[in-house]
Order: sequence, then structure tokens, then C-alpha cells
Amino acid sequence: MGTVDKRNNLKAVFNPCAVAVIGASENPGKLGCHVMKSLKKGGYNGTIVPINPGGQEIWGLPSCASITEYSGHIDLAIVVLPAKLVPSVFKECVEKGVKGVVLITAGFKEIEDPVGEALQTEIRTIADQADMPVIGPNTFGMINYYNNLNASFTPEFSWAIKGGVSLVSQSGGMSHLMAFTAMRQNFGFSKIVGLGNRLNISFEDMVDFLMDDPDTRVISLYVEGVEDPRRLMLEVKKHRGKKPVVAFKSGSAETGNQASLSHTGTLAGRHEIYTGAFRQAGICSVDNAQTLLELSNALATCSLPAGPRVAVLSGQAGPGMEACDACESHGLEIVTFSEKTQQAINELLPPLALRSNPVDMGPAWYNPAAVQGIVRAVLEDDHVDGLLLLTVYASANWELVSFLTDTLQKWQQKKPVITCFSAPPGIWEDEIKALELSGAIVNLPTPERAAKIMSYLWQYQQIKQPVWSES
Amino acid sequence: MGTVDKRNNLKAVFNPCAVAVIGASENPGKLGCHVMKSLKKGGYNGTIVPINPGGQEIWGLPSCASITEYSGHIDLAIVVLPAKLVPSVFKECVEKGVKGVVLITAGFKEIEDPVGEALQTEIRTIADQADMPVIGPNTFGMINYYNNLNASFTPEFSWAIKGGVSLVSQSGGMSHLMAFTAMRQNFGFSKIVGLGNRLNISFEDMVDFLMDDPDTRVISLYVEGVEDPRRLMLEVKKHRGKKPVVAFKSGSAETGNQASLSHTGTLAGRHEIYTGAFRQAGICSVDNAQTLLELSNALATCSLPAGPRVAVLSGQAGPGMEACDACESHGLEIVTFSEKTQQAINELLPPLALRSNPVDMGPAWYNPAAVQGIVRAVLEDDHVDGLLLLTVYASANWELVSFLTDTLQKWQQKKPVITCFSAPPGIWEDEIKALELSGAIVNLPTPERAAKIMSYLWQYQQIKQPVWSES
Repeated sequence: MGTVDKRNNLKAVFNPCAVAVIGASENPGKLGCHVMKSLKKGGYNGTIVPINPGGQEIWGLPSCASITEYSGHIDLAIVVLPAKLVPSVFKECVEKGVKGVVLITAGFKEIEDPVGEALQTEIRTIADQADMPVIGPNTFGMINYYNNLNASFTPEFSWAIKGGVSLVSQSGGMSHLMAFTAMRQNFGFSKIVGLGNRLNISFEDMVDFLMDDPDTRVISLYVEGVEDPRRLMLEVKKHRGKKPVVAFKSGSAETGNQASLSHTGTLAGRHEIYTGAFRQAGICSVDNAQTLLELSNALATCSLPAGPRVAVLSGQAGPGMEACDACESHGLEIVTFSEKTQQAINELLPPLALRSNPVDMGPAWYNPAAVQGIVRAVLEDDHVDGLLLLTVYASANWELVSFLTDTLQKWQQKKPVITCFSAPPGIWEDEIKALELSGAIVNLPTPERAAKIMSYLWQYQQIKQPVWSES
Repeated sequence: MGTVDKRNNLKAVFNPCAVAVIGASENPGKLGCHVMKSLKKGGYNGTIVPINPGGQEIWGLPSCASITEYSGHIDLAIVVLPAKLVPSVFKECVEKGVKGVVLITAGFKEIEDPVGEALQTEIRTIADQADMPVIGPNTFGMINYYNNLNASFTPEFSWAIKGGVSLVSQSGGMSHLMAFTAMRQNFGFSKIVGLGNRLNISFEDMVDFLMDDPDTRVISLYVEGVEDPRRLMLEVKKHRGKKPVVAFKSGSAETGNQASLSHTGTLAGRHEIYTGAFRQAGICSVDNAQTLLELSNALATCSLPAGPRVAVLSGQAGPGMEACDACESHGLEIVTFSEKTQQAINELLPPLALRSNPVDMGPAWYNPAAVQGIVRAVLEDDHVDGLLLLTVYASANWELVSFLTDTLQKWQQKKPVITCFSAPPGIWEDEIKALELSGAIVNLPTPERAAKIMSYLWQYQQIKQPVWSES
């Protein structure tokens, strides 16, 4: 992280008392307008100071021509001015004692023109000399859901709910996509941070910071490339076992840009080295952004399985089979129940169905109490490390989810339960949401994805502590 | 299919003028109640005749004590009585000249008790002698979206929209799950058919029937096991190239039931033989139900790519990279544009971004006309066989999807366009739905899935005609 001052300043960036928007605007064709909207509509409680030489009032708030003119203190400056104006703005920020900057502006190192690279070096020097952390440039910004601080150009980020996952991402587009998906699946975030060009805040700085952040239970990394992978690994290893770190590394393709085509072998190899090193450092390395999101949410919600032995309880045979297929291909074991459990199930189900693991609870549709009894017996079984509970809505089983709520909530901290409750739009949604928000379940759209995420929970259980034979 | 009579009768089953529900009920604890609801609320236009010895009127319709008592003609009987009553009901149906049966009742071959197997043999003999096709037993039923016939116990099946995909499935649970997913993704169906125990209507009978069904563009099979795989392959091969057939075979796991554990090798081997044989017969074999649904919908919507050369146009760099990764791992080629196309793009985009393939259209956010120009130039490029178009909503690009509508609709029948337009709930939904319903795009939730489905379209293009060197 560099200095202690920079680290403390980063804390202020995420928890500011006053935020200035340098480049604030009321013109919806300007990003400065959307940033103002994000702050105001997101429900941020601190002082918002619009900075723009033009107007006297922006979005109903008194504005200043420059940050120097403002009489009070500013913790965080969000900068949305053209790149060439940024060096002088940075100098003003330093003079003003601003703790840190979210620099949304693009047009630095990422452009073809060498002017961009020079500008980035210039502003980095200014920021570093003052121990002033900068998120960006070339970023959508960041959101802290624990104080309703939406310091991004997308007001709709505020629609996601509060949760335990902090997503740190190099891709603005994928951060948006993951947030939108999370809104539909009731996944919550602690923070979403777009690193952009990483002027002086890198993945390792964020890992270091989030390991001590009380609102973060899981650190989720969307990585395109890292300048110093070794430092990132060391940072994670230092905190091994403290909080789960999940990472997806994109860029396995050799065609990302035409220029890299000639270096085919190198690039592909680099991707494998990344994912291998991630695993060694105790990072759960996943193969796509969807799994990154689903696994991060599961790690923030579920207890970890003590072993790979899974029970599959299904309201219909098909989803149970699909889950078993996926469990097996991902290294989980479809356990044999204890005699006591099996007996309990046999008493609750007629001999019409699969009654060993997987259990087809179909014949108990009209009898949610029997389903509840089966779920309870299986969760109490010492042979069972985790439960996959799959039920597809059909009119006859409409009561089922609400009937299971108490049982599932009682077990949430003891054994992981991943469900695939599937229903038409508008049905079961409230019941499922209540279970998700209380942390009793993680609900996923297919039996296959439910099984895959359970297997990753078990994988994390295995890698979170270093082992003697680490090779 | 057996006899010509049975084939003609099957046609009447899907297009009946009058339907009897044998076991109709008003008690929501009975499946006969839900079947009545499905027929009535689903908007079926023909005559509905509830059969129940108890009442005189059910759901506001005059009922009969038995089908024999009804004076008019009946094409389709939906039977929801206990298994032991089914043989005598079948005899009545034959006498009455009923064309075919949907037999929802369970308790036949699938139960442990040998009584079930005997009953199934008994009713099969009755049905076969009369050339009476029977869907089931042990099924949720079937739905024909082209005449609003919901002959299932789940009224909500009617919430899915009309489309070109006919799903024939051995799993009731997975049929429900796929239909519910389809509702959220605007995928439509022609028919959904639950085969259940396949008394005398098998996968091959359905393939034979659907190949001639004018409302079916794609045949989608969810297979757990087939008695005579060779017959199924021959049936598909006979029609090779006429309509796409997509199949998912579940049951790769060895743990589906404990009894099969001792036959591990055999079972696993059988699964591979299935998928290999599928491909040889010209069936697109996929690896999960989600892909089965998404690919079937894409085949019903998109033209096929003439080759593997794909253009990736993205509103943000990250989703473009993710799509390229997936394209490459699935055997697609990120094409080099023609000089003319590249020049057009260079004129429309500032030198701030990736302008070769993949193209990051981010800098053109405020200028949807430029995005439209790029999309048009790329679609006109003879080097491009298919387009992946990925854009994540951010407030500044809110107009984008509606601006692209005309261009995309113009190209729909020439080159496949698969999109990943992603937005918060409530945003872009109408615009995306309009594009989907007009058949201009298939919209998928992640860039990765968009790329995967494009790769399968190319795979189908390659396997739809037999090749000389088939081995």
C-alpha cells in the first residue's frame, strides 16, 4: 500500500464527510450530470459540493467555481473534467487537503497518443507526493453500499442491495453487468470499485484495504492484467484464511487485439500462470464472470462444507439428476445417508420414488410437512456436509418455499444450503428473496450452477489454509 | 411411428376440437383441478368436457359421469385418475373413438411394485390395438402454443410466448424450469411435450411428427434415456438438414441411483456413446439444459453463419474481451475486417479505443448514429459471418438499443446477430423484447454465453449436411 498516510486516506475516500464533484453539470450529455445524480439519488448523507465555473447552483446545491473557493473541508473529489485540466485540478486538491480522488476522466495511458501517458505520469507524481490515493483514471467510479455513496456515473448502481461482497474490477462494463445481474438475483455488495488505469491504487492496495474493512466479507476480483502479480499473491497470502478472495482473470483469448497475435504462445501461457498462481496463493480462481459473482455471493452467505459429501433433495427427479451430474463432474460426493436418516425418509415418502440420495420428493408435494421432515433429517445427518435443494414450481407445490423458511433459517450457519427454486415470474419471488436476504440460502437459476458453486465452497475450504505439501 | 392411423391421430391430439378431462375437479388438492384451470385460463378455444361421477358442473362447465355418457365427439382425453382405474377408462376411450390420450397419472412402470409394470403393459395393449397415441403416463402433460392448448397440470405454462421451438422432454421438472427461464428471456415455444414413461409415443415418434409440423422450426430434446437409440438416430438422419435437432442427454453421473454404482464404467461409457451418436446423426449435442434452451431459441431465430468468422462489437472493452475469450475457446475466429470496413470504423471512432476487432464503441456513447454506422459497416463486410453485439447500460448510452432497432431488423435474415444487452431491471426491457419478438436478435445474459451459442450455430451449419468423410 505504500505509506500509512495513503492507507488512512483511502479509508476517508470510502467514508467521506464531504464530496466535491469537479465538473458537476446539469446537462445530461455530460458525465458530471450523472455523477451528481448518483450522489443525490443514491442517498449519500454527507455534504455534496458541485464545482463548475459556470453556474451558481447545480442540482439545487450551491456550487463553486473551483475547489479552492469552497470554504469547508473536502474528503473526496470526484473528477470528471477533460484530461488536460486534471494536473492543475490535482494541485488544487492537494493544496485543499483533499484525502483522495475518484478520477473518472479518460484519455491517459490507455490512448494511442503519447500525450496520455505523459499526463498520467504527471498526475501520478502530484498524487504520490501528497500520499493522495486515486481510483482511476478511466473508471466509472466506485460505490460504497454501507454509506450510500455512489461515486460513479451510473445512478442505477444504487439499485443493488447491501451485502458482504466487495467487487474490485478492471472492467467497467463487466462491473455494470455483474451489478445488474446481482439486482435480479438479490445478491448484495459492500463495495464496487472500478480500478481503471490504476494510477496509484492497485488490486493489492484494495486487497490490503478490504481485508480490514468490517463491511467486507468476501473480496471479488475481476482481473484483466496486473503489473506485479507477485505483489498481489503476497498480499493475499499474508491474509490467507482471513477472508475469501475469488478471482476471474479474463484475456485467455489471443485475439484481444491484433498486435498481440504474434505473441500467441506467451499470452496463453501467461493466463495459465495467473490462474495457477492464484490457486497457490489461496485465491479461488474461477472461469467466468458469472461464476465470480455467484461464488462470491455464496461465500458471503453460506458456511463452508466440512467435506465433499452432498445431499441432493429435489422436488422432481430431473433437476436432481442434473445436480448429481454436475456434483460428480466437479468432485463432490453424493453421500450415502446414515441409517437413521434413510429410515426417516422412507417413513415420509411412499415407495414410488427415488428415496436414497438423490431424493425425489415429488410424491410429497401435497404434504410440505413431509418435505420439511426430510430436509431436517438430512441436515441433521453427520454424513452430510452440504445440501442442494431443488424444487421447481408446479401449482400443487405452491406452499413449499414458505413452509421451509423456518427450517432453512435455523441451519444457515451450520451447513451450506444452495437452492434452485425455480418459478414463473411473480411466483415465489418474495419468499425466495426473504430467504436470501436473511442469509439462509443462495438461490441459483439452474441445478447445475447450484452444484458448481457448492463444489467451489468445498474447494475454498481446502485451499484457505496452506498445506504442508504445497507445491 | 408405427401405423399411419396412429400418426394421424397424434395430429388430432395436438389439434383437438374437443377435449375431455377424465378426473376433472374443483378441489385444488387434485391435479384434475389444475388441468381444468390450464385449459380454461390458457385460452383453449375448443370444447372442454369435464368428466367426474360426482358433480353436474365443474368450473362452470356441464360435466358427465363418464366419457361414454357424453353425446358429442372427443379428440383428446386428458386422464388424471388413479392408475388402477386407467385400463377401464382406456377401453371407454377406444369405444368412444377418442383419437389420443394425455395420461398424467403416475404409478406405472416407474414404481417399485410390479403391479405398475403390469398395468402399463395392459394399457399399452389397449392403446396399440386402437392405434391410439398416448403421451405419458407419469407426465405433466403437453402444451401447444399455436392453439392455446395447455393440456398440463401447470396453468402457468401458458405464460410463455409462442415461438418456433418444440421441446420434447423426459423430465417434467426440467421442462418447467426451462419454460420459466424462457418466460424471463422472451424465448418462445411451439410445443412442450412431457413424454413421461413413453407408453407408445417415444422421442422418435415426436421427431417424426414435428418434422412435418408447420409450427415447429427447431426440435429440442431433453433426454434421460432411450430404449432404442438407433431408431432415434435413424429418424433424425432421415430428415437431416430439414429442421435443427438439439439434444441434451442427462445422466452422466454414476450416482443417479445407488444401484447403478457397480456398473460405473458401463454407464459413463453409454453417455459418451449417446453424445457421439447424436453428433453423427446431425443432432447438436449440448452439455446442459441452459444451453439446450438458448441454442434452440437461437436456431429458431437466427440465420446460420456461413463460416466461423465473427465480429465483436462492444459498448465497453471488458464484455468484448470476455466474448473474444469465449469465441476462441469454442472455435470461432475473430476476423480481420475488410479495409473498407476498417476505414469506416476509423472515421466513426476517435483513436481512443480498440478499433479493430473487437471494437470498443465506448467513445461513441453519446453518438448512437456512429454506433449504428459501425454496426452497419460490419454487417455489410463479406468477411464477417456473424455478429456479437454487446452493450451494457450506463446512463449516457440509454438511447442505444432503440437506435439500433431498424438496422438489426433489416439484417435478421442475412447474418446471425447475438446480443448481450444488459441493463438494470426495468430499463431497455421493452426495446430488447421488441427486437427479440421480431426475430432480429437473440439476447443472452452474458458475453460468454452469447459467444458459445454463436459457436453452436456454426457447428450446426457444419453438421446439418452429411459429409463424405463421415466416420
